[in-house]
Amino acid sequence: METAILLISCPDRKGILSEITRFIAENNGNIVNADQHIDFQKSIFFMRIEWELEGFKIPKLEIESAFRPIAEKFQMDYQLHFSSEVKNVAIFVSKYDHCLYDLLYRFKSGELKGNLKLVVSNHEDLKHVVEMFQIPFYYFPKNRENKLEVEEREIELLKKEKIDLIVLARYMQILSNRFVNEFRNRIINIHHSFLPAFVGAKPYHRAYERGVKIIGATSHYVTEELDQGPIIEQDVVRVSHRDTVSDMIRKGRDLEKIVLSRAVRWHLEDKILVYDNKTVIFE
Amino acid sequence: METAILLISCPDRKGILSEITRFIAENNGNIVNADQHIDFQKSIFFMRIEWELEGFKIPKLEIESAFRPIAEKFQMDYQLHFSSEVKNVAIFVSKYDHCLYDLLYRFKSGELKGNLKLVVSNHEDLKHVVEMFQIPFYYFPKNRENKLEVEEREIELLKKEKIDLIVLARYMQILSNRFVNEFRNRIINIHHSFLPAFVGAKPYHRAYERGVKIIGATSHYVTEELDQGPIIEQDVVRVSHRDTVSDMIRKGRDLEKIVLSRAVRWHLEDKILVYDNKTVIFE
Amino acid sequence: METAILLISCPDRKGILSEITRFIAENNGNIVNADQHIDFQKSIFFMRIEWELEGFKIPKLEIESAFRPIAEKFQMDYQLHFSSEVKNVAIFVSKYDHCLYDLLYRFKSGELKGNLKLVVSNHEDLKHVVEMFQIPFYYFPKNRENKLEVEEREIELLKKEKIDLIVLARYMQILSNRFVNEFRNRIINIHHSFLPAFVGAKPYHRAYERGVKIIGATSHYVTEELDQGPIIEQDVVRVSHRDTVSDMIRKGRDLEKIVLSRAVRWHLEDKILVYDNKTVIFE
Amino acid sequence: METAILLISCPDRKGILSEITRFIAENNGNIVNADQHIDFQKSIFFMRIEWELEGFKIPKLEIESAFRPIAEKFQMDYQLHFSSEVKNVAIFVSKYDHCLYDLLYRFKSGELKGNLKLVVSNHEDLKHVVEMFQIPFYYFPKNRENKLEVEEREIELLKKEKIDLIVLARYMQILSNRFVNEFRNRIINIHHSFLPAFVGAKPYHRAYERGVKIIGATSHYVTEELDQGPIIEQDVVRVSHRDTVSDMIRKGRDLEKIVLSRAVRWHLEDKILVYDNKTVIFE
Repeated sequence: METAILLISCPDRKGILSEITRFIAENNGNIVNADQHIDFQKSIFFMRIEWELEGFKIPKLEIESAFRPIAEKFQMDYQLHFSSEVKNVAIFVSKYDHCLYDLLYRFKSGELKGNLKLVVSNHEDLKHVVEMFQIPFYYFPKNRENKLEVEEREIELLKKEKIDLIVLARYMQILSNRFVNEFRNRIINIHHSFLPAFVGAKPYHRAYERGVKIIGATSHYVTEELDQGPIIEQDVVRVSHRDTVSDMIRKGRDLEKIVLSRAVRWHLEDKILVYDNKTVIFE
Repeated sequence: METAILLISCPDRKGILSEITRFIAENNGNIVNADQHIDFQKSIFFMRIEWELEGFKIPKLEIESAFRPIAEKFQMDYQLHFSSEVKNVAIFVSKYDHCLYDLLYRFKSGELKGNLKLVVSNHEDLKHVVEMFQIPFYYFPKNRENKLEVEEREIELLKKEKIDLIVLARYMQILSNRFVNEFRNRIINIHHSFLPAFVGAKPYHRAYERGVKIIGATSHYVTEELDQGPIIEQDVVRVSHRDTVSDMIRKGRDLEKIVLSRAVRWHLEDKILVYDNKTVIFE
Repeated sequence: METAILLISCPDRKGILSEITRFIAENNGNIVNADQHIDFQKSIFFMRIEWELEGFKIPKLEIESAFRPIAEKFQMDYQLHFSSEVKNVAIFVSKYDHCLYDLLYRFKSGELKGNLKLVVSNHEDLKHVVEMFQIPFYYFPKNRENKLEVEEREIELLKKEKIDLIVLARYMQILSNRFVNEFRNRIINIHHSFLPAFVGAKPYHRAYERGVKIIGATSHYVTEELDQGPIIEQDVVRVSHRDTVSDMIRKGRDLEKIVLSRAVRWHLEDKILVYDNKTVIFE
Repeated sequence: METAILLISCPDRKGILSEITRFIAENNGNIVNADQHIDFQKSIFFMRIEWELEGFKIPKLEIESAFRPIAEKFQMDYQLHFSSEVKNVAIFVSKYDHCLYDLLYRFKSGELKGNLKLVVSNHEDLKHVVEMFQIPFYYFPKNRENKLEVEEREIELLKKEKIDLIVLARYMQILSNRFVNEFRNRIINIHHSFLPAFVGAKPYHRAYERGVKIIGATSHYVTEELDQGPIIEQDVVRVSHRDTVSDMIRKGRDLEKIVLSRAVRWHLEDKILVYDNKTVIFE
């Protein structure tokens, strides 16, 4: 069953919901999912609506232009997606392999519905793992001097391969503003703390030092400011005085895998809207 | 800001959402909340939609009759509520006081928006607590012989006081079918286990015997079958071999309070639809 | 069954555990609980050991002097408690009443085994609540000018009443260093965030602004630095884009109550050891 | 650092802890971990104690006989392990691959400290996965007729390979009593429900039908009675009316992986004691 998906945000006004649903109903569309949210503080309307293409009177390629007048009337930001489109994905990784394995398996098993085109790394250590799953591996060593230049080659590759989503699976390099701008709201990172606690390096060590009783992991879109991008998902696990830093790192690995994979899944299924450095998740 | 709330369920068909929202938009209603769900297995459409009455062209008392043609067209089961209506609540309690205190406080502080009219008990032990909060206390002692007859007097009282919701806050009596029928989907019970595990008596003791590593609590609507009604909310807490039955009972008390109060709040805010012995929670 | 409880910390060395248990065994003590922890990073040994006084050869009042040679040999910091001793407790509160009610109930019901001697407030608003539970209420209004002087009168009262533990149940005043020093590791505060995220004022508002997906609460001992003291307990609850600041405040109240009451219980049962701005919880 | 580990259970009596620790201290052992538990209801003492072998006066091979008099005096059930011993592990699997991949990765990365010797399956589907990780794969097709006979060949293989632990990673065959007896408390199964809810087949379907708001997974030792063995670990995840059976199955997969791997880790690290169809976990 192929579906069309509209992701919409616009200033809140009377009649938006009615007009959107009328557009679908009058064209004989069968709505299979509709989720709506209003931020009353900022007076913004958000919606994700999904309907079957079978029987829909407007041909797939003309839906966008047919919808445009409504979008303009309500000053909508909108994205139109089709369930048949599969996004191209690149994973960036350094030396830690737990999130990499986890994602490789989820793509391979079909749990994540994306086209995993390639893996990029600044180290060669995980080449064999990636090749075990028969995914192309690209080695881009980086240092302070060549960083921007190497990034250009990475961007070139990502564009050539029409990459829609970049997943930083514990990638230990900070991306330049140029890179981030090129893929705004299309780079998902996993940070190994319960943000905004422990921004930056060595969060498990700092969590241990502070004596917290719960640790967390956070997936977020990457922005210019380190660990400050819109949070997509978080989860936590209990620790005690018995847990050493190594125990926290071990417990954290399972969190990181799950929290990252949930974010990737929602992105691939067009369930995330970003605004005001926050996310609306139409789960 | 006064609002109207429609809770709807009906066979799923094209155009339902469009027709409902058109009804509101054409009458100049401002939708402040819309949540919709389709059960594809059974092909049932569910909706909760809430709009402001200010500026709405149809007078409050005529909304129901104005909406009826749409309801009939789509064979809807529906309820129309107004945010200005405050439900009348009765609490039934026996000897355990933790849920009672918790609810008394939540009503008193205004966290729960209901009119707590009275407390009924089959024991006199908690009379002073109820009176401390200045709520009328009714003592209805029960035994095997007089049970049905006492229930009739309880029903009479509840009807006289126009009670909309009965909360069993650890009430240690099984209600007759007659009683349950009189208040279908309007009696909320708290069961001190993670249903369907440990239906019936002494669930903490049985959880201890079985050696579970997590215990739970479940709030549900009461039906004729013991602990088999539609589940509204559940929550859990970790236990270990170190926890005795008393520890489980203590940990469970906090669960019971929270799980029961969430269910009561959702009911009072018209956020629950019951179908097929399950609940849809428009949280 | 009366028990003696030793809380011990000392540099880690061979033979500590053996010597402590021999002391108890040779004097015919029946150990009912023993929990031990070693911080290998800092090489510190921690222990909580509890044994029955019945049949113990050393009279209660001589246990401390009998144990002292062992304590000196291993350079122990130690506390000797008896289960029969009930601690005197004072609650400090401002205008929010949810933690206050919760604690009043837990003391009244005997769940918390302390002697709740009095409640102090810088406002008169909650006087009637405290008196409803028949606990003395002391009103100490504070302003920038009289703060230190009022604190002296508070300290005087707390000493006169032999208060062992001060619980800040959402008390909206920062205590002076003088006050904190007087009751080191005997003042428990509840902070309404998942520390170290959102130290200071209005944490729910800031959590909302940051767009976190989970909020938390933290109970900790008060030190000179605001919200930097040893963390005793934390817990969290999920939020989403649907939750407004008010929803977070409501959800947070239940967290605050539970997280604060757990800390108070552990303190009253002598289950907490503080070192290095962290806690060991012998739960 | 090599250590010795004693796992002990015996009738509770005065002096046990003292005598065990004296045995270690007098022989110059450095205790690195000691965890003790008393079940007061049944009056049983449990302990896990771990000490460094370096500097210990008794040679490794003589520790058992040196300890035996103490064991006999207190009628102990005990196991002596050494951290240097690595257990041999076999995984049994059918067609679901998520737990298999997860375990293969955890063994490969060294997170699980066992010697994964082989994988057994009643289907050939996952052969390539197992071989990708360079582990021997054994295909033992089973049907109603040959089941017991095939099991004999499996037992033979397991004995030949000196297998210490069998992990049923979603193995869709019920083991005979003969098999279970051969490896009592050494077969760990993952059941995809929050036991004792939904014993037996299709638990996610039944959870969906019952309308629960939380689903779980349970790892346990296998006994003769289906899903009735001692529970080792459980965990849960929230579901709502929006979750279909497929969503539950997807969410459950992550639970199953984590809950199974925790149980395997604790077993491999000698942290589990079984008694009375329950477990004591010295975590």
